[in-house]
Amino acid sequence: MAEAQPNADDRRFMAAAIRLSRRHLGLTGTNPSVATLIVADGVIVGRGVTAIGGRPHAEPQALAEAGERARGTTAYVTLEPCAHHGRTPPCAEALVAAGVTRVVGAASDPDARVAGRGYAILRAAGIEVLEGVLAEEAGDQLRGYLLRSVKRRPEVTLKLAVSADGMIGLTDEGRVAITGETVRRQVHLMRAESDAILIGIKTALADDPELTCRLTGLEARSPVRIVLDRNGRLPASAKLAVTARMVPTMVAALPNAIQPSQRSELESRGVTFLATEAHEGRVALPELLEDLSARGIGTLMVEGGADAAGQFLAEDLVDRLVLFSSTKEIGSAGVRAPITPATVPPSFRLLRESRFGADIGQEWVRAY
Amino acid sequence: MAEAQPNADDRRFMAAAIRLSRRHLGLTGTNPSVATLIVADGVIVGRGVTAIGGRPHAEPQALAEAGERARGTTAYVTLEPCAHHGRTPPCAEALVAAGVTRVVGAASDPDARVAGRGYAILRAAGIEVLEGVLAEEAGDQLRGYLLRSVKRRPEVTLKLAVSADGMIGLTDEGRVAITGETVRRQVHLMRAESDAILIGIKTALADDPELTCRLTGLEARSPVRIVLDRNGRLPASAKLAVTARMVPTMVAALPNAIQPSQRSELESRGVTFLATEAHEGRVALPELLEDLSARGIGTLMVEGGADAAGQFLAEDLVDRLVLFSSTKEIGSAGVRAPITPATVPPSFRLLRESRFGADIGQEWVRAY
Repeated sequence: MAEAQPNADDRRFMAAAIRLSRRHLGLTGTNPSVATLIVADGVIVGRGVTAIGGRPHAEPQALAEAGERARGTTAYVTLEPCAHHGRTPPCAEALVAAGVTRVVGAASDPDARVAGRGYAILRAAGIEVLEGVLAEEAGDQLRGYLLRSVKRRPEVTLKLAVSADGMIGLTDEGRVAITGETVRRQVHLMRAESDAILIGIKTALADDPELTCRLTGLEARSPVRIVLDRNGRLPASAKLAVTARMVPTMVAALPNAIQPSQRSELESRGVTFLATEAHEGRVALPELLEDLSARGIGTLMVEGGADAAGQFLAEDLVDRLVLFSSTKEIGSAGVRAPITPATVPPSFRLLRESRFGADIGQEWVRAY
Repeated sequence: MAEAQPNADDRRFMAAAIRLSRRHLGLTGTNPSVATLIVADGVIVGRGVTAIGGRPHAEPQALAEAGERARGTTAYVTLEPCAHHGRTPPCAEALVAAGVTRVVGAASDPDARVAGRGYAILRAAGIEVLEGVLAEEAGDQLRGYLLRSVKRRPEVTLKLAVSADGMIGLTDEGRVAITGETVRRQVHLMRAESDAILIGIKTALADDPELTCRLTGLEARSPVRIVLDRNGRLPASAKLAVTARMVPTMVAALPNAIQPSQRSELESRGVTFLATEAHEGRVALPELLEDLSARGIGTLMVEGGADAAGQFLAEDLVDRLVLFSSTKEIGSAGVRAPITPATVPPSFRLLRESRFGADIGQEWVRAY
């Protein structure tokens, strides 16, 4: 198709729309966080981002701000506008009705009810449509939504802090400060943008972590906490259990692995149990991920330890890899990291690299 | 296709399998509650029902009980066996591997990953397959799952108690005992089998209900509670709010309708807010239902009052209708029922009619 090419303005406004769409990352429930900008003669006259909770969508909000000025403008949308009817008109029709004459889109929507139909509605109405502008950048943060639609599992991010000698902790002592305060804050921000966090039982027992987001103003963004606990060993006194009525805690144990008395004690604190399938004595992860996805969990952050991380890596279930590297050495009593910057397989592409105080953070995504 | 016809035994065993599948109705999370019977020469040698939480599936459990005796048998499955690979083999392959030689199925699975492929795997392995035996009976209780797969919304059951003069309560006084104790117990059982219950704000204010399942042994089966509350009037002192950390309570208010201070007071009690779209000053129901479905809610019971029931009926969103009729009269101070046995539209088919003490219960399903 001899489609027009994006101009410099198109890329600039789309980049701004993608930045805006980040604002509600992790806060839009089962809908993706997307943004719309309405631009008249190079001036933004309307802006919208998916509301907290996932509705209203970005487009009607941007159009409402623009009002009559929306006629004859260009709309920048980070995701193909929705095409399916509920009680309110689909966003593609809302753009048509408002008199927008040109739409520049980034990512396409793989949802079977959209999948090209959003753009088709626009084109049928005589609107000039330019697809795929900064699609990779937009798709990067929509990946949880895109994966859930296509693969019916959440996007899995594995996060590990690795010492200079390739360790992630001390044997039998659990957590040891490998990275500094700046990394800690970055990890809490990552939690705020995730729907769920998963750790293995060894880490739960050794560290007794709370796994909440403790950044001022973002406390309410704490994700669901999941413990991979095949033999059902999480004690009812663990912080994860004690706080389960404030922030949900789920345990993935093997069928019948847990004692009924321990189970009811945990349940009385508000802990829920995930149904699992067993595979070679471990919890079958693809089935677990499928069920989490069906519950609306679009993004899962795996925070360790070595066993849980190793299982996700071995089963090729990691979509995004975030490694924080420190100059500290742990020594031979350390727990070896299942992956280090030097051993990241070539199926992952380095997306960004940043300095966090004295530490380095690197982020890879799996190429699909 | 000149397919074999079911014999009397086939219908008898399938009916038994369907009864068995009811055991975990409402308890299998996002997976459907299905059952499998393995029958050798007219004798059941293995039985399985989807485990609580949704895994393991029915087939491997029935095959495990049958063991070596599964060779050469007939398997009765209330839903087409799954065909997609996770870590564990799909159920269709498990039936093949166990040496089952004949499979009798009831409902077909509309899940795009199954949709005929489960039966195809069986046939490709030389197994005789008979589909659609008692499909309607099996589909009846799988309807929540089937609707969620196809329409991406929960199955909606509207339940009302109607007096002899067509009233559902007293104006300004809310609940009045229309039906008796037997109906009360039946309603609590219906709650136990639902993923969520919805009421309108007027009912929440007038009755201050708890909406939990209070049948001995079934207390843990209480569904999520949802209040349709467009103007955000639910007080933080309401039982639904006070108990929100025990049984989740969600409020569907219009965007920006609720005062920030009231919202944070409710949130501090554990109440969550659903994002909504507005349509003519009310909460847009199709969008609300779509989001509930994406959260894994497959069955929703609407318990009134007249406004909420009327809105679901007017928007043609009721799949199943349960009316309990009493011989009591309420009089002219009553609130008129939005629907009575005499006004059920012909698009609904009467499924069953039972006596509950002095009251009559009738259940209709929408014909699709």
